[in-house]
Amino acid sequence: MQPKDIAKDTAQVVQNYLTFKAVQLVITQLAETNPQESIWLRQYSSGGKLRDAEAYIEEIMSEPRGKELALRIMIVRDNIATQTLEFLPEMVAAGIKSDNLVHRRHLLERLTRTSDEAPNLDASERLGETEDSD
Amino acid sequence: MQPKDIAKDTAQVVQNYLTFKAVQLVITQLAETNPQESIWLRQYSSGGKLRDAEAYIEEIMSEPRGKELALRIMIVRDNIATQTLEFLPEMVAAGIKSDNLVHRRHLLERLTRTSDEAPNLDASERLGETEDSD
Repeated sequence: MQPKDIAKDTAQVVQNYLTFKAVQLVITQLAETNPQESIWLRQYSSGGKLRDAEAYIEEIMSEPRGKELALRIMIVRDNIATQTLEFLPEMVAAGIKSDNLVHRRHLLERLTRTSDEAPNLDASERLGETEDSD
Repeated sequence: MQPKDIAKDTAQVVQNYLTFKAVQLVITQLAETNPQESIWLRQYSSGGKLRDAEAYIEEIMSEPRGKELALRIMIVRDNIATQTLEFLPEMVAAGIKSDNLVHRRHLLERLTRTSDEAPNLDASERLGETEDSD
C-alpha cells in the first residue's frame, strides 16, 4: 500500500462524498422551487445508490427527468469542490493531531489508574507513567 | 448547508478513511512480524467498527493488547496524512472535472440519439444538440 495509492483511494472517497453533499444541496434547493422534483430526487437517491457517485450519475441520466438533475448535480459538486478543497489538508491534519492528543491523554490516565491498582504489570503496561506524574 | 460545514464534514470523512487505511497498514505489517496479533486486529476491526474512527480508537485502548496497537495506529495515520493530504485537493478537483466531462459526453450522445428517434421532444430534451453536431 503506497502513499500514492492511498491518496488516490482517498480522493475517490472525497469525490463520492462531495457528490453526496451536492445531491443533498440540490434536494434542499428544489424543495423551495419544485417540491415534487425534490421528493423524486430524494427517493431516487436513497438506498445506498450514492456509494458509487459516478455510477449514480450515469444511472440518473437514463431517467426522463434525470438529465437536467444530473447536469445540476455535476455543476454543484464542482462548485462545492472549489469552495472547500483548499482547506481540507490543514483541517484533516489538525483534526488527527488534536484527536491523537486526546486519545494519548486518555491512555495515560488509563495506564496510571491500572498501575496504581496493579503495581506488578509488565513494562509495556506502565508506558507513560513518568510523563503522567508531572 | 454552508461551505464551511461541508468542509468540516468532509474533513471528518477523510480522517475516518485515513484511520481505516492506517489499521489496514498495521494489519499488513503485523502479518510479517506477529501473525497472531495481525489476526486479532483484523477480527477486532471488522463489523463496521471503523466507521467512527475516534470511537474505535477509544474502544481498542480498553483491550489489554489494544493499547500499543492504538498508539501505533495513531502514529501511522498521522504519517499517512502527512504523505497524502498535500495532493488531495488537486486530485479531487481533477477527478470531478474529468468525470463531469465524461458524463456530459454520454449525455450528449444519449440526447442526440433520442432526438434522432423522436424529433418532437420538448426543448429541455434537445439540450446540447448544437454542441454535438460539431
